[in-house]
Amino acid sequence: MVRYFEATITETVGDLGEKQLIAHVLRAIAPTIEDGIGVGDDAALLRPPVGAEVVISTDRVPTDLVARRFGLMNPRELGAYLAEANVSDIVAMAAEPAGLLLNVAVPSDYPLEDFRDFVKGFVAAGNAHGAPLVGGDTGYCSVPSFSATAIGWVPSGKALRRGGGRPGDKVGVTGAIGGFGAALTYFASRRAGNNKQLPAEAERRLLDRLVRPKARSDLLSALRGPGLRGAMDITDGLGQTLLEFAIASEVGIEIREESLPIHESAHEVARLTGVPLASIVFGIGLELELVVAVAGAVGGGGFSPDWEMTTIGELVEASAGVKLRRPDGSLTPLPGKGWEHFSSDAEQMIAGVEEPSPG
Amino acid sequence: MVRYFEATITETVGDLGEKQLIAHVLRAIAPTIEDGIGVGDDAALLRPPVGAEVVISTDRVPTDLVARRFGLMNPRELGAYLAEANVSDIVAMAAEPAGLLLNVAVPSDYPLEDFRDFVKGFVAAGNAHGAPLVGGDTGYCSVPSFSATAIGWVPSGKALRRGGGRPGDKVGVTGAIGGFGAALTYFASRRAGNNKQLPAEAERRLLDRLVRPKARSDLLSALRGPGLRGAMDITDGLGQTLLEFAIASEVGIEIREESLPIHESAHEVARLTGVPLASIVFGIGLELELVVAVAGAVGGGGFSPDWEMTTIGELVEASAGVKLRRPDGSLTPLPGKGWEHFSSDAEQMIAGVEEPSPG
Repeated sequence: MVRYFEATITETVGDLGEKQLIAHVLRAIAPTIEDGIGVGDDAALLRPPVGAEVVISTDRVPTDLVARRFGLMNPRELGAYLAEANVSDIVAMAAEPAGLLLNVAVPSDYPLEDFRDFVKGFVAAGNAHGAPLVGGDTGYCSVPSFSATAIGWVPSGKALRRGGGRPGDKVGVTGAIGGFGAALTYFASRRAGNNKQLPAEAERRLLDRLVRPKARSDLLSALRGPGLRGAMDITDGLGQTLLEFAIASEVGIEIREESLPIHESAHEVARLTGVPLASIVFGIGLELELVVAVAGAVGGGGFSPDWEMTTIGELVEASAGVKLRRPDGSLTPLPGKGWEHFSSDAEQMIAGVEEPSPG
Repeated sequence: MVRYFEATITETVGDLGEKQLIAHVLRAIAPTIEDGIGVGDDAALLRPPVGAEVVISTDRVPTDLVARRFGLMNPRELGAYLAEANVSDIVAMAAEPAGLLLNVAVPSDYPLEDFRDFVKGFVAAGNAHGAPLVGGDTGYCSVPSFSATAIGWVPSGKALRRGGGRPGDKVGVTGAIGGFGAALTYFASRRAGNNKQLPAEAERRLLDRLVRPKARSDLLSALRGPGLRGAMDITDGLGQTLLEFAIASEVGIEIREESLPIHESAHEVARLTGVPLASIVFGIGLELELVVAVAGAVGGGGFSPDWEMTTIGELVEASAGVKLRRPDGSLTPLPGKGWEHFSSDAEQMIAGVEEPSPG
């Protein structure tokens, strides 16, 4: 394994209490923002651009987040992860992130330093997307509970919905797919005692995909470009995402296997672990990459090169279902059904792998 | 006691799974709203009125919510309570509630009927304030975790902040104060074995204050009226609220004891239980009533009669502190420091009172 999170902390959240936490931790890390009201009033006040619509979404960190159970993610990364996942939902609507609310409950013996690191990670990640921490709530819970809300602006009529696709549209994905799945599969296999190891640099890049996913706010102007009809971020695996996109748009989808931009390590991890490549690519993953539908008439492949986006198939009539076109021309049902499907393939590797003892 | 929540349910949240919960419970209860996108897309899309600023806030239900521990609150009321607490923060900014996001994590053996009732209570309460459920997140947690986010609109420059008060302003409160504190004190005392009982009708009204607090969205137009300078909702007791308001506005406050609109049962509960009236009135309570500051020049008492609001004192120089003027003319420090202070007076009554067994 790459590393474990170590803690030798004595001061706890309970030593400070809720009011002091807000005054001395949250306000210190997130000072009042200029264009509105920051942390500390009854509510945050934000000024949307003229003519903008408001996009808002909330996401929580699963209590059993695998990277946490594996001891691969420190509190700062966890905070950043929560911010990225929330910002990603805003970006997937082609909206500009504008602010974040943080809603945290931890046991009173939760280390204060971890709490501070968590908030720092959250705030830094949000700031990088133009979404400062503008409010939140803190409380106690016997099990740490981390959730957030992101808000953003989109010019009227420019929001991209998952229901916006039409038969004939091209389907694209941003970035490479399968990095998160490969990472999860690899580190689960390592923890289960498999001693086949990737080179250190490849391992580091995989860990990055697992614990430091990034929302694609860098693609915003492209998402508002001509021909874009629908978008959705990948948080439950590409297979589940395509399925939900197809249902929302009332279309079928045909994906071309040879067009998939597969993450550099996915083949190697499949070979090392025996987990099918299809499960890694389709079945697993908070990738935070985007699936988009683009009107077929735009451009040749549907995308311009500066998109860093790949056409992987097209939308078809709903009756055709969601299918994968193999290189030999045959059509099969799309593998993977998000986390639920992955469960049957690889959950047994993850289940029973215990959280490491501190240090 | 008035009643306990009974459950004889077999079907659980885990029987359905997250995707089915969203499809069959959340969407059924909260259908797509017309002026935007409802539950089901990556994010909700809302159209603010022209020239509006956006107000947004998040609040969680404390895990140890006393009314729950006492078995006095059913899931439907809990859902409504969460919605009211979130809407109240929007109202306290003089903003019009426009939508709610729900973020819930429950154990997989959480009864499905309770989950459904919780959502129904949440949605009905939000709808009554013009704040439909527009999005959310559901997940698993070994301890139920309920939080939400409210969003609203306020005409540019009309938001009321807790930092808006100035020396010379009148201080007012809406409604009656001490109902929540009286209820908590009374029901804690009853559970601790005190058999002195209020008449059934008075008991029913107290329970109402404890488990069915209401955000004051009915006062919105008054809150945007002339002379209003600052507002804050009472969620941690009147004493804590005044203290935080004074700090935010950098003022002192002088409250006149004989002007306080004390809840009808507070005196009687103080007598029955031996808990000081001051603790009940100042120290305890998610009242969801509002503290406001009004420019002293407006009207005689600062308020017009249709406000259902009472002038209780005035803002003074910060150096004067936060004080209570007794009927004999003497000045004392304001009693109560919110929940923390209440702890020392009455927490011993509440601590150790066990949750009732089902039925």
